[in-house]
Amino acid sequence: MVVILRQNADKAQLAQLENWIREMGLESRKTEGVNSTILGLVGDTSKIDIDLIGALDIVENVKRIQEPYKKANRKFHPKDTVVEVGGIKIGGGNFAVIAGPCSVESEAQICEVAEAVKAKGAAMLRGGAFKPRTSPYAFQGMRGEGIELLKEAKSKTGLPIVTEIMDISQLPLFDNVDVIQVGARNMQNFELLKALGHTNKPILLKRGLASTIEELLMSAEYIMSGGNENVMLCERGIRTFETATTRNTLDLCAIPVLKERSHLPVIIDPSHATGVARLVKPMCIAATAAGADGLIIEVHNDPAKALCDGKQSLTPEAFGDVMKAVEAVRPYSYKFN
Amino acid sequence: MVVILRQNADKAQLAQLENWIREMGLESRKTEGVNSTILGLVGDTSKIDIDLIGALDIVENVKRIQEPYKKANRKFHPKDTVVEVGGIKIGGGNFAVIAGPCSVESEAQICEVAEAVKAKGAAMLRGGAFKPRTSPYAFQGMRGEGIELLKEAKSKTGLPIVTEIMDISQLPLFDNVDVIQVGARNMQNFELLKALGHTNKPILLKRGLASTIEELLMSAEYIMSGGNENVMLCERGIRTFETATTRNTLDLCAIPVLKERSHLPVIIDPSHATGVARLVKPMCIAATAAGADGLIIEVHNDPAKALCDGKQSLTPEAFGDVMKAVEAVRPYSYKFN
Amino acid sequence: MVVILRQNADKAQLAQLENWIREMGLESRKTEGVNSTILGLVGDTSKIDIDLIGALDIVENVKRIQEPYKKANRKFHPKDTVVEVGGIKIGGGNFAVIAGPCSVESEAQICEVAEAVKAKGAAMLRGGAFKPRTSPYAFQGMRGEGIELLKEAKSKTGLPIVTEIMDISQLPLFDNVDVIQVGARNMQNFELLKALGHTNKPILLKRGLASTIEELLMSAEYIMSGGNENVMLCERGIRTFETATTRNTLDLCAIPVLKERSHLPVIIDPSHATGVARLVKPMCIAATAAGADGLIIEVHNDPAKALCDGKQSLTPEAFGDVMKAVEAVRPYSYKFN
Amino acid sequence: MVVILRQNADKAQLAQLENWIREMGLESRKTEGVNSTILGLVGDTSKIDIDLIGALDIVENVKRIQEPYKKANRKFHPKDTVVEVGGIKIGGGNFAVIAGPCSVESEAQICEVAEAVKAKGAAMLRGGAFKPRTSPYAFQGMRGEGIELLKEAKSKTGLPIVTEIMDISQLPLFDNVDVIQVGARNMQNFELLKALGHTNKPILLKRGLASTIEELLMSAEYIMSGGNENVMLCERGIRTFETATTRNTLDLCAIPVLKERSHLPVIIDPSHATGVARLVKPMCIAATAAGADGLIIEVHNDPAKALCDGKQSLTPEAFGDVMKAVEAVRPYSYKFN
Repeated sequence: MVVILRQNADKAQLAQLENWIREMGLESRKTEGVNSTILGLVGDTSKIDIDLIGALDIVENVKRIQEPYKKANRKFHPKDTVVEVGGIKIGGGNFAVIAGPCSVESEAQICEVAEAVKAKGAAMLRGGAFKPRTSPYAFQGMRGEGIELLKEAKSKTGLPIVTEIMDISQLPLFDNVDVIQVGARNMQNFELLKALGHTNKPILLKRGLASTIEELLMSAEYIMSGGNENVMLCERGIRTFETATTRNTLDLCAIPVLKERSHLPVIIDPSHATGVARLVKPMCIAATAAGADGLIIEVHNDPAKALCDGKQSLTPEAFGDVMKAVEAVRPYSYKFN
Repeated sequence: MVVILRQNADKAQLAQLENWIREMGLESRKTEGVNSTILGLVGDTSKIDIDLIGALDIVENVKRIQEPYKKANRKFHPKDTVVEVGGIKIGGGNFAVIAGPCSVESEAQICEVAEAVKAKGAAMLRGGAFKPRTSPYAFQGMRGEGIELLKEAKSKTGLPIVTEIMDISQLPLFDNVDVIQVGARNMQNFELLKALGHTNKPILLKRGLASTIEELLMSAEYIMSGGNENVMLCERGIRTFETATTRNTLDLCAIPVLKERSHLPVIIDPSHATGVARLVKPMCIAATAAGADGLIIEVHNDPAKALCDGKQSLTPEAFGDVMKAVEAVRPYSYKFN
Repeated sequence: MVVILRQNADKAQLAQLENWIREMGLESRKTEGVNSTILGLVGDTSKIDIDLIGALDIVENVKRIQEPYKKANRKFHPKDTVVEVGGIKIGGGNFAVIAGPCSVESEAQICEVAEAVKAKGAAMLRGGAFKPRTSPYAFQGMRGEGIELLKEAKSKTGLPIVTEIMDISQLPLFDNVDVIQVGARNMQNFELLKALGHTNKPILLKRGLASTIEELLMSAEYIMSGGNENVMLCERGIRTFETATTRNTLDLCAIPVLKERSHLPVIIDPSHATGVARLVKPMCIAATAAGADGLIIEVHNDPAKALCDGKQSLTPEAFGDVMKAVEAVRPYSYKFN
Repeated sequence: MVVILRQNADKAQLAQLENWIREMGLESRKTEGVNSTILGLVGDTSKIDIDLIGALDIVENVKRIQEPYKKANRKFHPKDTVVEVGGIKIGGGNFAVIAGPCSVESEAQICEVAEAVKAKGAAMLRGGAFKPRTSPYAFQGMRGEGIELLKEAKSKTGLPIVTEIMDISQLPLFDNVDVIQVGARNMQNFELLKALGHTNKPILLKRGLASTIEELLMSAEYIMSGGNENVMLCERGIRTFETATTRNTLDLCAIPVLKERSHLPVIIDPSHATGVARLVKPMCIAATAAGADGLIIEVHNDPAKALCDGKQSLTPEAFGDVMKAVEAVRPYSYKFN
């Protein structure tokens, strides 16, 4: 951490700051410049509140040098994390595709989609039971009943199931769910993250619509600091000024940036990022090529009749076509090491 | 709702769409153009899922014409909502300032600040008991104990108290809280919004960091559709590319836009928007001049020692100076009618 | 400037870097931390290319501490710049309103608007002769002829004229123009800025749609470093994700931030920022209250028939109403010192 | 174009509007809804100023249905444009890589880099002679002399040359340049675009930092409407809230979106988008996989000593490594049809 002092900083206040830094178990090293003086803080600064120092009269600016995340940080865990879900591995060179409908709608629908995506090569089944919808008047999901239907689809196909949690109180219903998804809107629902940190379930943590990569890693850190290190990071598009065709802007450069900073697997969700079915295939190919550890794709047996997000869902045939393209490009994708 | 059809749309599919629209209780009126044909949907389209129609092969684009919110919509409720909190009114020409520390830290601290802000003209006391912090290693608030201390400060000063809820499970602790705040990160925690819709407490709903004005109104709609119409909207800065000095970009134009679209009171939070104490005063004056119904301002007895967000907190003296400037500008502020 | 070195940086390369820093006339002071070592550079670092150092293998990150602008920097010129235009002063406590149509359309139109805005209290006349339009098929302005008509309006009313330049080759036509405007799209047309730096005309420099405050000041620096220090900065809305009602997001906090960093006058353009006539008044009041040195407002005698941007133009009557509100709020506006 | 009328719109004004629409050679078809009435405009609406209609009292909103670009529009030119440069083809299934240094620095440097990138498979040489730099104190390029050196490198290697123009007055110096680049900051320098529309040179048009895809296509339309249809579109990163590691956010989804809307070739610039050499390779692979028609990559013989943007330049060896990866992934990339 580097503290930049104001010109002519009061000496008594400066001495007090240096003293406080020492009390925090850190050392400070002063460099006097022509127009400004800087203090370099040496030691574990992750517990120092940067705003606290920034609030001092004598301080012009404070800049953090070390990342504030530890358990998610590749510096301290150089080896890739491999998340295992019912025999399926993701990360560390293992690649998997999660597919299924936006919402669970009926037993027939979820089982039909599950069988179709399994046949085309999906490794896990996704399906929303609790649905975060912008409008209170829109379909809110089948909730507990939806989870029961997912379990049925799992028992028929053997596919592990991935579904979203929206509130701590729903946790008991997730006992037989294989991967708990935290949606973009809940990425900073810190109470929920803490509760998930005390489970032993793999967590698929989606990046918030306007969350930085560092904030995503800090949210992973919330889960990991509770003891649950089975976290998969998911980029699903960020909000920018561009909204002409696509709902969000898919940040594929987040793949190498996340993998450089963290050892956690990185999954890409092109369905939500683009919001347009015909853009899913090129973005799946590109994400795979850029080195993603997995994809999560919306597939529906009858997209035009889907109860939500039909616009971005693929038919099982189109999904099969995407799977072939993804498998073809995999050997030529970027490798991290 | 206007549906733009693709060139050479299949006639059978079009007939099917027109039929479906009729079944939904709506009429459709067709306009054939040179390069495209449009369908205008007539009736209550608020329950139509725009994505569902957009997913059809024959549809190029769908545009909504009516706002998807009703209870929050000024069109259907032309008169300003006035929220009453322990004798204090906000909205409909009534203006109030909420002030207090970012976090409750101790009995001495919260009572001292409460008395100081009351003396300077604040109408309510704010103070965080549950604190959403980006880092799991940062101070997370005094939680239940913090709420007890707020109640103590209330009993000493008579100021109604405003504090943030982070999870449904905390709701029982808010029985004696006067205004429940929903933070920016929870603006789309829909389960929480639904639960708050079943209380009768005034809600201070903060705009998410990257939430549009329509999304803010839809979140208000979630609360209101549950039966609780005591909602105050709060703009607290949005995330943009500009981060040189200020944490966020304060969107003051949201005041007239929100008041045009909705009858709910609009509160401005310049402390979180700027993140810098010395920018709070000019932004308080500007927000008041732009027609805000109230302000929420961070004040701490010792900002440099605040356990969080000290950088943006005013001293009680500086707060008094802001109050004088705000009161002076009030008679010349913009009036809606 | 602070250089953060990688863990285990090669010692020979580090010695080479320290040597190069010395050759640039700077000193470097090393602080060794547990996980990283930093070099603080002491001296005038404004000519050091931050990317050059960042490119070195041994460097993890470089952070600038001093601002890269000098002539525009308040640190080196604490006193407010006052720009004088034909007897009108802007800055240093002087406030002026510039008004007029988006485009010059005819002699009758520009003279009628000029007289109307003068009668209501405008200090200068604006009017576009060269029009930057997104579409090549839209009206491109009356160009040279438009400037002649502006001069006519000036000779009739005595109002100094402000109009936009789009290319260096147009400069000779601006001989009798009082203030040359650089539009948002040309804020980083560096060749044009350099050319304007060699004139002695006051320049109204508009902030680019997605330009940071630092970039705006660097563009002012381009003009000032050529010898022309008569620069007025103009905030006119930035591009964000929010586009529901307003074209852009007006960043009123830019007023105190710019005035803290720079001595140049700050003008606000609510017409382009909002793009909606009925939002101009509240934003004019707010901008004035926040401490702006002036406003630039679109006024048209017949907005519904304006050849461009009619949607955001006020009638002369509405402008008169805005002027009264602005004059009323002026005494209570924020003062910098 | 769809015009949404206000509730209770004045009938005389509405009749006037319908009349005016007829005079413009268009038909209007009215649809009366419960809460609003809409007018559908039938005919060529590309010359209608959307703001003009939006300014009318009786109009609540206007929405464009047809794209405002024609020559760049795939609807009217379904076949891919193939741009030819000295025997090299780009577009329509032809792929090419442009490589070279950010700035031309000396004859030795540019010739050395030219030979190195040719040996590794580059089809054209890039190099900046006129350099847009944020700071007036930074290196501004070798200008005319730089172009002479580029020609020398061309005569030695046979590689066509690509270099940036910053002002119309520089055009005579570009006589022997093969491709004229328009930089991101000049994407809406409309006078320059018009001038380039009157040349017969291929133009590499970079997307502005905060320009939408529609604005990029409108800028291409400026060039094409002047008669020059040899335009290549270049995505080089957009400005978002995320700036932790990368300078900008590379919008790879712009590839399929642009190719769907336009017949022009699409080139990706991962060097400027990321600003970080080690991220160039994964983004080159991803861009190729997503279906780009070409890449433009910064390569320098000694990145650490580059006069600008060294941080993002590859060494010739690293470039060779990228070329191999790009060639390997090409057969598996997304195909448009």
